[in-house]
Amino acid sequence: MGLRDPRPHDRTGRQGSAVTTVHTTDPRTGRTVATDLVETTREEVDAAVAVATADTAVLRDAGRLARARLLEELAARVSGAKETLVEAAARETGLSAARLAGEVDRSAHQFGLFAEVLREGGYLEVMVDHADGAQPEVRRMLVPVGPVAVFGASNFPFAFSVLGGDTASALAAGCAVLAKGHPAHPRTSAVSAAIVAAAAEDVLGVAALHLLLGFRAGLDVVGHPAVRAVTLTGSVAAARGILEVIGRREEPIPFFGELSSINPLVVLPGAARRRAGEIADGLFTSFTGSGGQLCTKPGLAFVPRTEHGDRIVDGLRSQVEEAPDHVLLSGAIRDAFLGGVERQVQAGAEHVAPTRPGRPASDGFAVRAALLETEVSRLRPEHAEECFGPVLTVVRYGEVGEVVDVLRDLARSLTVSVHADPDEDRAAVDDVLAVAVERTGRVVFDGYPTGVRVSWAQHHGGPWPSTNSQHTSVGATAIRRFLRPIAYQNAPEWVLPAELRDDAEVPRRVDGVLRA
Amino acid sequence: MGLRDPRPHDRTGRQGSAVTTVHTTDPRTGRTVATDLVETTREEVDAAVAVATADTAVLRDAGRLARARLLEELAARVSGAKETLVEAAARETGLSAARLAGEVDRSAHQFGLFAEVLREGGYLEVMVDHADGAQPEVRRMLVPVGPVAVFGASNFPFAFSVLGGDTASALAAGCAVLAKGHPAHPRTSAVSAAIVAAAAEDVLGVAALHLLLGFRAGLDVVGHPAVRAVTLTGSVAAARGILEVIGRREEPIPFFGELSSINPLVVLPGAARRRAGEIADGLFTSFTGSGGQLCTKPGLAFVPRTEHGDRIVDGLRSQVEEAPDHVLLSGAIRDAFLGGVERQVQAGAEHVAPTRPGRPASDGFAVRAALLETEVSRLRPEHAEECFGPVLTVVRYGEVGEVVDVLRDLARSLTVSVHADPDEDRAAVDDVLAVAVERTGRVVFDGYPTGVRVSWAQHHGGPWPSTNSQHTSVGATAIRRFLRPIAYQNAPEWVLPAELRDDAEVPRRVDGVLRA
Repeated sequence: MGLRDPRPHDRTGRQGSAVTTVHTTDPRTGRTVATDLVETTREEVDAAVAVATADTAVLRDAGRLARARLLEELAARVSGAKETLVEAAARETGLSAARLAGEVDRSAHQFGLFAEVLREGGYLEVMVDHADGAQPEVRRMLVPVGPVAVFGASNFPFAFSVLGGDTASALAAGCAVLAKGHPAHPRTSAVSAAIVAAAAEDVLGVAALHLLLGFRAGLDVVGHPAVRAVTLTGSVAAARGILEVIGRREEPIPFFGELSSINPLVVLPGAARRRAGEIADGLFTSFTGSGGQLCTKPGLAFVPRTEHGDRIVDGLRSQVEEAPDHVLLSGAIRDAFLGGVERQVQAGAEHVAPTRPGRPASDGFAVRAALLETEVSRLRPEHAEECFGPVLTVVRYGEVGEVVDVLRDLARSLTVSVHADPDEDRAAVDDVLAVAVERTGRVVFDGYPTGVRVSWAQHHGGPWPSTNSQHTSVGATAIRRFLRPIAYQNAPEWVLPAELRDDAEVPRRVDGVLRA
Repeated sequence: MGLRDPRPHDRTGRQGSAVTTVHTTDPRTGRTVATDLVETTREEVDAAVAVATADTAVLRDAGRLARARLLEELAARVSGAKETLVEAAARETGLSAARLAGEVDRSAHQFGLFAEVLREGGYLEVMVDHADGAQPEVRRMLVPVGPVAVFGASNFPFAFSVLGGDTASALAAGCAVLAKGHPAHPRTSAVSAAIVAAAAEDVLGVAALHLLLGFRAGLDVVGHPAVRAVTLTGSVAAARGILEVIGRREEPIPFFGELSSINPLVVLPGAARRRAGEIADGLFTSFTGSGGQLCTKPGLAFVPRTEHGDRIVDGLRSQVEEAPDHVLLSGAIRDAFLGGVERQVQAGAEHVAPTRPGRPASDGFAVRAALLETEVSRLRPEHAEECFGPVLTVVRYGEVGEVVDVLRDLARSLTVSVHADPDEDRAAVDDVLAVAVERTGRVVFDGYPTGVRVSWAQHHGGPWPSTNSQHTSVGATAIRRFLRPIAYQNAPEWVLPAELRDDAEVPRRVDGVLRA
């Protein structure tokens, strides 16, 4: 009946569909080999999106309790496949088996948390306003937005990749996932995708997740008109690229990017006096854990120019000097790390340890940790750029006011950490917080920003450039990204979704009054 | 200390600052006169944003109860100034005094509703996860995003303009407002802005709202780095323009647009049989109210090709023929209306009433209402374009399946309305709803989409092109657009905001359990 616009949707043209093999690299050796995987063609992307659209209807109509069962099944199967998963990821990421096993646990925990979220039902934000005089009855709840494209991160092959929180929260919301496999761990991505698809097939009779491989497939899926949201855990440059494709779409869609963060950590004078050794240990563990390849890695530590501050630097120095090499995730990250450290030194930071830096003897993408130091008055933009890898720049200060001034000018971050003595540092804490809360998503007290608790109250998402979103990517409320409200006005009971009926057992707000 | 990037922020260059007088037009006569207002220069925009940034800190630090008092004061002052406001707007919009007085009431009600929202405190989404083994304590709440630019609509000089829901919800959130005065009602905008600024000055000692006039000032404020969100109630073209400026910003910011909507209304056969006369009356009132210049105006009505359907069309015809002229808001809207009706006729729709359309005898921007008709099989994209003004296109159908097919292809809308008989039309309702809920933000049963209740559960925002957002612009939850989360990890009690402390009396989720 002629209503559809005959123009094809606007996506970058591409001729032919030659098969392109996907390769994988072992960061421990630097050796690249072919896999049995191939890049996803445009036709395959279209087919995957079509199936994902149908899957989304099934996920939605199955209801939240059925989706909770799927997520619980996924939690069990991910845990059950731990050995296989760790083995695949170790070969592609160089991360230690212990670290990877912990990450598999976290991934399973995330599926489990979203199952809890579904069973409880508060996430639906159900509200009922009864009719009032001439005013009609209005009943509101959240519904899934549609198929979601998920771009995972290189540094978390499970918890922020195909089996990650974006996938878990999208499936929980009722949205099928188009998961772009990360080029740094394609095999891990494929093993992961197979687990989700098999579990979804068994529980709900659909795949629910479709793996896409290759750079072009990523562009194609973002441009596809049936895709309704995009998530990325990655760089600002990647985010800009995705936003550009979204800008060319006929219909804009939301983008949820978790991007770049310097995570300043401030040690106040009282804390330095009381806990220098402890802080040196904690800070060392935080900036070198996982080879410093965490979006929450503290990149700048403000340390007072006192003898207690010296003790912190000394403690860090001795640990860095004794530290083993760190194998980084890829050659690109290794090169960016070495370049970033060099840029900082060029801009005036000094090597504290190792005193004579250089490439390590190890194979592959191994590097040595680096501890740099500068003065707060000599801080330059180069010192405040995110640098993935095991590098920390200590910034020595005299007055807390100098730190506050710097915090005001630093790029916004996922986290700001403050170490304070409750007696000595009270006024200083107030000054630091006044600036910090404006410029971050999480304030950490007497602790370290790495290690993001996956829980109901967690928020992982500071203002740009750390994210572009007013929603978290970690924790229970991450589900809100994939939901939109719908209101039913004067609807008879028999057409209402189960959760909007009077007998539904979910938290709700009735005529403005919240009922748990 | 050299951290700031020395590049000036990227905004369109402009030389000089010649004073440009703002003009206003009376739609009832078409006469344009100069006002005593002038366009805001770039320097004045910069100054306004600087003050708004400081105001935002005051609004935030004053706390939600102080902001509730401000909103209550605003509700009272807006009601108190009703006569002045109505008089100003009547001269600039041509809307009737009764309509405008009702809108002032609505505006006051909106300020009052957000005061209730603040006093209750659930909007803060407070969550507390207590420490658990090695897992740290995390406390989360929402905080204001920063200064907000508000672009109001021509068709609601109060409820969606300077005194509108965007202003009310932004102030409630704790964000100062940079209000772009609408060129169709600059004097009304100025009177409105003065009321807000005076009330805020009296209650909190700051202006809280700053009026900007002129097209260039609108571009400048969107591009200003300190502005943290933008709202628009307007056209898709205006939204594209704003998104383009946002795309050039160094830091992207959220945009909340309420844009374009055709609002299909489906009369099912049973409803037509039982309530033909009532539906004709209701539909006539809905599409001609406020001159049909509402984003929720039903643009397409699907009516069965039965004798009962004929009665609906007859009822509409007789009312349209007897209807007085409607004065539209501006010459541009009048021209777009006449052009839109003509395009529909060119595409095959037929004039039902008036049978011999033409320009009315009245002065200014007056037009006659238009009732068009076509067959579902002959529906073309031209019939499904939003056309502001008093025009309704009746689409006659044989089988409900034909309507369902059309709904699937129509642009997404703020609303879909369904008139159904609970006995005869059950299966048809299911079929229509299966498509409708995918493509709208509000489903209206046995009613009309115009008249949007301002309440807790309301949702005003379908998928693009009706909005670009997953949040409403009407109702209590509109406040969420101007908030972002922050989490405190292991924070001592004395640094926590009042609402995150254990003794705070706000709804909260503790270790996953909601407590009202």
